[in-house]
Amino acid sequence: MAVQKPSIPQGTRDFGPNEMVKREYIFDTVKKVFVKYGYLPLETPTMENLSTLLGKYGEEGDKLLFKVLNSGDFLKKLPAETFESGNSVAAGLKVSDKGLRYDLTVPFARYVVQHQSEISFPFKRYQIQPVWRADRPQKGRYREFFQCDVDVVGSDSLMNELELIQIVSEVFKALKINITLKLNNRKILFGIAESIGYAEKMMDITVAIDKLDKIGIEAVCEELRAKGISDEALEKLTPILELSGTNRERLASISEIIAESETGMLGVKEVTTILDMVDALDVDIDLELDLSLARGLNYYTGAIFEVKAKDYAIGSISGGGRYDDLTGIFGLKGVSGVGISFGADRIYDVLTALELFPENAGNLTKVIFINFGEKESLAALNLAKEMRAAGISTEVYPDAKKMKKQMEYANRRGVKFVAIIGESELAENKVTLKDMASGEQSSVDFSEITAFVKNRL
Amino acid sequence: MAVQKPSIPQGTRDFGPNEMVKREYIFDTVKKVFVKYGYLPLETPTMENLSTLLGKYGEEGDKLLFKVLNSGDFLKKLPAETFESGNSVAAGLKVSDKGLRYDLTVPFARYVVQHQSEISFPFKRYQIQPVWRADRPQKGRYREFFQCDVDVVGSDSLMNELELIQIVSEVFKALKINITLKLNNRKILFGIAESIGYAEKMMDITVAIDKLDKIGIEAVCEELRAKGISDEALEKLTPILELSGTNRERLASISEIIAESETGMLGVKEVTTILDMVDALDVDIDLELDLSLARGLNYYTGAIFEVKAKDYAIGSISGGGRYDDLTGIFGLKGVSGVGISFGADRIYDVLTALELFPENAGNLTKVIFINFGEKESLAALNLAKEMRAAGISTEVYPDAKKMKKQMEYANRRGVKFVAIIGESELAENKVTLKDMASGEQSSVDFSEITAFVKNRL
Repeated sequence: MAVQKPSIPQGTRDFGPNEMVKREYIFDTVKKVFVKYGYLPLETPTMENLSTLLGKYGEEGDKLLFKVLNSGDFLKKLPAETFESGNSVAAGLKVSDKGLRYDLTVPFARYVVQHQSEISFPFKRYQIQPVWRADRPQKGRYREFFQCDVDVVGSDSLMNELELIQIVSEVFKALKINITLKLNNRKILFGIAESIGYAEKMMDITVAIDKLDKIGIEAVCEELRAKGISDEALEKLTPILELSGTNRERLASISEIIAESETGMLGVKEVTTILDMVDALDVDIDLELDLSLARGLNYYTGAIFEVKAKDYAIGSISGGGRYDDLTGIFGLKGVSGVGISFGADRIYDVLTALELFPENAGNLTKVIFINFGEKESLAALNLAKEMRAAGISTEVYPDAKKMKKQMEYANRRGVKFVAIIGESELAENKVTLKDMASGEQSSVDFSEITAFVKNRL
Repeated sequence: MAVQKPSIPQGTRDFGPNEMVKREYIFDTVKKVFVKYGYLPLETPTMENLSTLLGKYGEEGDKLLFKVLNSGDFLKKLPAETFESGNSVAAGLKVSDKGLRYDLTVPFARYVVQHQSEISFPFKRYQIQPVWRADRPQKGRYREFFQCDVDVVGSDSLMNELELIQIVSEVFKALKINITLKLNNRKILFGIAESIGYAEKMMDITVAIDKLDKIGIEAVCEELRAKGISDEALEKLTPILELSGTNRERLASISEIIAESETGMLGVKEVTTILDMVDALDVDIDLELDLSLARGLNYYTGAIFEVKAKDYAIGSISGGGRYDDLTGIFGLKGVSGVGISFGADRIYDVLTALELFPENAGNLTKVIFINFGEKESLAALNLAKEMRAAGISTEVYPDAKKMKKQMEYANRRGVKFVAIIGESELAENKVTLKDMASGEQSSVDFSEITAFVKNRL
């Protein structure tokens, strides 16, 4: 067979050892926090039935689903009319029954409904898995990327919102990233829409406000005007989006403005309760009530969250909110939930840019024995065995290659010590240990090497 | 939209919290051992270019690849002739450029070649990821399943074989599974083929011998006869497959039989060296030289391994071997490697059947506070915060539901303690702690609860 120049599909990535160790640092950190709060792990299949996925992400989302070709004689199910019509969307549905997971939320909802009889509600789960979108790849946007979701379903208590805020605080403190948590409430947004006389345009208003950060207030008003919102209403809207003062002051202002909206005032009450609990528990977080925070997704119905890194300019690194009827589409009504998603790729970028990854995160191997031949390496293998039993990651270079080559390997692996057992060392049952950081060399007895290394790690 | 009865594709699985915790126990255990020996993590994309995958797994393998439909207007690339021919295989290649990972070995080889300039050889990597095969699903055979591979490439030293044997020993000791490691060498198999006069039928002989365990010696001979092997040769072959005695005795017998085969004797020498090192290092493993061990895959060229559980009847739970030219197909010649794959699903089955999962593996939450309303739960939240800071996984039930309902939840979560702060407890700054195993109740001061629980975990 001809030699192939190897490559991977556009928008996908290999994670080599260096990236993997850093990614695992992120995932391990968040997992530890999730577990402390009683969240349980879940994984769902990479492929879901297309019937599960289609229609859940809007028309645009349907187009971005990766579809898996039916195995076997798939052409049989493709009618000549469909082929001749040249309609790839229709044809896709004939030759494919399965698609790749597009997010973790819909599979979670599907799981909850399918396994409702086994689940003890409230069900607190976390899920860290890749998702796939046939988006045009660009810097920072991939076709395969990881989501890291934590949700609780089956309880409408605001204590769940509080818990997520505590989790956000704890995760980013553990990662040493300074953040602002922005909080808003969809009910308040509805209250605003209602108060400016356009309750029925709540979604248009939400979608437009969502872009405020990116396009500015003028462009938002432009968009809303195009959607048929009157200038008078816009004049009421803009000061709301620019309310100043403390969280409590803004909350007071907005409750005056939307006092007539029952739903809106419910939102105000929810935010108040959350702020009260955050204060009562002295949660260590910079929390900002941001009335312009909207978040695009349709299914949110209560609290919405977004996390921004303070020291590095990048989009939100976490986001989520409460949804009241996620499982309804799969036949289970009245299950309210709230969740938040941690953006692993962006968090990785922030940690890289601010140099916040722990030093030596990638250097797991502590000691490498240089190989001088059969007899010497047998002694090395025996000592390596002893050191591993003591929990020290240790390698013995497998080939008796030139010293320089072996040292280069040790260097690139970033080990703490290189251990040398040559002919003379072997004769004396001693190891020459070289500290790769300081360059210092020590001659250590076979019987003392494990303790020696252990004390210096 | 109509309500859908949720389901997942045939041959795929959800891993709920109970399974997840047990699976993570397996993966964490093997990872810890891999890291101790200096192996580094790698992950490759779920989708590979079809050109990377096709032709690597034989004709049957090509059929079992899941192909991903090209996004956008894929029909354009499907010529009318191909459609009209009804040839789904040909059509599949027109409408699909990408496939799902079929194993971890080919992506690993692709990665090594693609990143050869960044890699320090010998490259020791482990990889734990799902793979997909469009096989007919049946008991114990899935269309999505996990592989857990550990390989070292870029060194032909037999110390690598030794290291894998040490890893096998350590992994299964950590998992408390009693095993036999079967060892053979492809060069010996070639020597046998050569000695019975059918060197050119080495592959047929290997494939037939591979079935010995399943179909017995008679059926193996039948198959070989059909492949054109003479009765005279079969008479030489059968006693070889049934050699008895210790490993060393069998090795002595086989080296007499294949003394004329240069390759065969090289295999004998390799096995001898490995046995010598295993003895010298006193590796704690039941190692059996099994001359009938063949392993089906074509690319092995030296040592081959297989692991059997002693106390539970199931196929091999690990297997691997040395390959001399895995990366050649991608343009990098002369890179020898050796690796072993741990069968996560079967290991899971063995641990389940023999009840070897650690007790309480799934019960991560230690304490649940019952919710009696706003004031009481605020106290609970404060204590939960303190306990989590001390590393104790703690939940506060989010709704002030009936006590019975909350106790049921705590029961199903398998927590160690239920913590009760009702009106009277609150008045006295005390918690009633119920030990769920013993039923014992204690009244503990707010200020002492963290220490109390910590001492009893």
